[in-house]
Amino acid sequence: MRIPVKFEIRPGMNVGMIRYILCWVMEIEGLFLLLPCIVAGLYSEKVGTIYFLWAALCLGVGYIGSRIKPKNTEIFMKEGMVTAALVWLFMSLLGAAPFCITGEIPGYLDALFEIVSGFTTTGASILNDVEALTHASLFWRSFSHWLGGMGVLVFILMLIPVQNGSQMNLMRAESPGYNVSKFVPRVRGTARILYKIYLVLSVMELVVLLLSRMNWFDAVCITFGTAGTGGFGVLNASCGAYTVFQQYAISVFMILFGVNFSFYFLLTARKFRIAFRLDEVRVYMTIIVAAVVLIAVNTRGYFGSVEESIRAALFQVGSIITTTGFSTLDFNQWPSFSKCILVILMFIGACAGSTGGGFKVSRVIILVRTSFRRLATYINPKRVRRIKMDGETMPEEQVRGVEVFLTVYILIFVLSMLMISLDGFGFETNFTAVAATLNNIGPGLEQVGPTANFSLFGPLSKIILIFDMLAGRLEVFPVLILLYPPTWKKR
Amino acid sequence: MRIPVKFEIRPGMNVGMIRYILCWVMEIEGLFLLLPCIVAGLYSEKVGTIYFLWAALCLGVGYIGSRIKPKNTEIFMKEGMVTAALVWLFMSLLGAAPFCITGEIPGYLDALFEIVSGFTTTGASILNDVEALTHASLFWRSFSHWLGGMGVLVFILMLIPVQNGSQMNLMRAESPGYNVSKFVPRVRGTARILYKIYLVLSVMELVVLLLSRMNWFDAVCITFGTAGTGGFGVLNASCGAYTVFQQYAISVFMILFGVNFSFYFLLTARKFRIAFRLDEVRVYMTIIVAAVVLIAVNTRGYFGSVEESIRAALFQVGSIITTTGFSTLDFNQWPSFSKCILVILMFIGACAGSTGGGFKVSRVIILVRTSFRRLATYINPKRVRRIKMDGETMPEEQVRGVEVFLTVYILIFVLSMLMISLDGFGFETNFTAVAATLNNIGPGLEQVGPTANFSLFGPLSKIILIFDMLAGRLEVFPVLILLYPPTWKKR
Repeated sequence: MRIPVKFEIRPGMNVGMIRYILCWVMEIEGLFLLLPCIVAGLYSEKVGTIYFLWAALCLGVGYIGSRIKPKNTEIFMKEGMVTAALVWLFMSLLGAAPFCITGEIPGYLDALFEIVSGFTTTGASILNDVEALTHASLFWRSFSHWLGGMGVLVFILMLIPVQNGSQMNLMRAESPGYNVSKFVPRVRGTARILYKIYLVLSVMELVVLLLSRMNWFDAVCITFGTAGTGGFGVLNASCGAYTVFQQYAISVFMILFGVNFSFYFLLTARKFRIAFRLDEVRVYMTIIVAAVVLIAVNTRGYFGSVEESIRAALFQVGSIITTTGFSTLDFNQWPSFSKCILVILMFIGACAGSTGGGFKVSRVIILVRTSFRRLATYINPKRVRRIKMDGETMPEEQVRGVEVFLTVYILIFVLSMLMISLDGFGFETNFTAVAATLNNIGPGLEQVGPTANFSLFGPLSKIILIFDMLAGRLEVFPVLILLYPPTWKKR
Repeated sequence: MRIPVKFEIRPGMNVGMIRYILCWVMEIEGLFLLLPCIVAGLYSEKVGTIYFLWAALCLGVGYIGSRIKPKNTEIFMKEGMVTAALVWLFMSLLGAAPFCITGEIPGYLDALFEIVSGFTTTGASILNDVEALTHASLFWRSFSHWLGGMGVLVFILMLIPVQNGSQMNLMRAESPGYNVSKFVPRVRGTARILYKIYLVLSVMELVVLLLSRMNWFDAVCITFGTAGTGGFGVLNASCGAYTVFQQYAISVFMILFGVNFSFYFLLTARKFRIAFRLDEVRVYMTIIVAAVVLIAVNTRGYFGSVEESIRAALFQVGSIITTTGFSTLDFNQWPSFSKCILVILMFIGACAGSTGGGFKVSRVIILVRTSFRRLATYINPKRVRRIKMDGETMPEEQVRGVEVFLTVYILIFVLSMLMISLDGFGFETNFTAVAATLNNIGPGLEQVGPTANFSLFGPLSKIILIFDMLAGRLEVFPVLILLYPPTWKKR
């Protein structure tokens, strides 16, 4: 049983409800901002006071606002989209402030870039020296990945009352990739299961990293970065300074967090046969193995041993395909063929229904299948062919949706690249800067490569890239609808 | 009235008919190979003998082969595709030989690259020194553009007998972009009108160039290059050595040859109102004006006068959007923003139904419209919206076709780029090398920029790029179907 989606149209917007949700966002973010206060306390850092005051302000204002309930709690599709976009923007605007007030990131636009990069699990930074940050700020930065990984609206949906059906419109706007809903009927139920899987996997990684004798602060932050497929590190060398075992552990967990969470759900439900037959997971794993082998062979000469080249390939492939963005070395120095593979992986991205970004493996599968279908149609024009996924026929409307998504994706990509090229950097830098933000990866190549950062761009480019990160995380449409004039027309 | 397309399926291929058409190709190519003989005669070049002997061989074998008519002259869609791909491949294999036998291009693969680049109107060269070629070979090289511009099958269709309906399957395979058929009912009629327009425009350019005191050889070759939107020049400096007036003249004609030929047909039919309301032509012109203005402003500092910067922008924009590929300067030296605009124009390409390549303006229009339609659907999910073109509703099947085309295009692009990256060149070089060949432009950026050439690539990359040129010219599907194993299955 699926919750029916409301398709009626409202003249205008349910402003009251949007305000109400935003107040809840403020309250919850205030609550989460208390965590860096605790970290500051542990390390006796003065910035703790700033975090505390800011947290108190958010909590207070948010609390008062969220006591005034709107009369109408219905959310239609259009409003679901707009709300999702506004929630993410608002959350980022609030979350950026502490960086700025503490003076650790002097410019507000830079602070905003950093926290949007955090929440959207991109991991692209404008910081030249990460290690200069206080522990509190480093924690807040990494924690934003963990929060953004699963989506904030989903979290809020577990707390606030909305009309049935409206939940679907909100959740769908934040994460259209989720298809656990195929297996779990109720939205709240779905959200709980997703969070549970997320939490269990995160704890598992944390335990493994702690057992490997990583210090607890690094272990917590790296876990946040891996779980959210974010990629903010706490060291300037990203993950290059960690031990061999730790690198393997992080690789494996990155890849695990890129798997469609349906897979884990099916495992817990003991539906092993269905789980291991999921097309997306199988293709995802195949791509990873193929990429690791090709890169390991191609970069063989760069490393002292076969193990080293396989480890480097595994880490970088896992990091890029899941759109995490950690690195153990400067892959910008690799040969073109390996770099080209990484760029392709940037676009493919992780599985739908994971915390990863990118175009998503399932969409790529659908596009490849439609291409072959077209070839088959030329040979036998009469036979009607349907696209299948996991053995089931896909509704043609859904296939169509993927094609339109591709189109919109490309249009945004091209326009973004054109705009940031005004800053005068090279083609590879611009291309991979947009690829790394729109796909929520983090590092690109050349001047935005793993050892570089995004501080070189001007204000306009930063705004474009912030837009791209949000567009990528929300799968394009919510932010476009927010900016699309007819959305705001009163009819 | 449209000619009905045969949708039945044949078990196997009409091999006899394909052989028959290939023999005709041989005969006609033999005939055309006599033209460089004449040129060689005028300049007393010894290579004339080689061209003559090769022409005689092709004519002889082709003549004998084309006397044996097949019993069944029916061509189904699948065979139309395969035939088109084979015709272009065969024509290139034959046309490359003289370069090789005369020793002017020692390697056969290089010679093949050069002539495929000619026939597909790409204009990408592997020659370091164009001026070292004999006049006969320069002429044959440029003439291949003119021949390839309008399509060889269309020409053959005017000569050979095929069953009604089969013509459409052949013509459609060679140039799915043509939509003159909307206005002219019969295929042969269409072909004649297209050739007439092509001829008249070519003669006009030739006259203008001769009046501007260009020597006749250059004028003829440049006309061939412009008309076919090819781009092979006869000087190492491409068009940089020509006078200001000549540069403007070439710019204008390049742009004219990139216009949908329906426009000219409507003009000759005195349907001015419909002609000037063609969406594609209007958007095409708007893009050109916008690109010229932006580039002229962006490169203002590079030139001594405003006129000079506008002229440079106009020439380069006209050359790239029509996928001709002439140049008057090294635009690889331009600022990133201007280069980015050129790269975008590379992909947009000219109008459908022109001699230009690329993705085609009409397809871009359709994709942009589907994107906006999707946004509108989120706001009002109930209203059914249709994509319109020239005021008429487009069949949804056709819109869908464009989306699938985009998908296949991208897949070919990505795979090609991956393969040629094995040669180890930079990202920008690889990206624009594939862009320049798949879109039939000619020069790219960096190491395949306007002052460079494609000789640096290894044999595998050359084969890939030859494939891309053919795929680009035939709009992807014919070459894919030729290589698609199920095509050859006997059922």
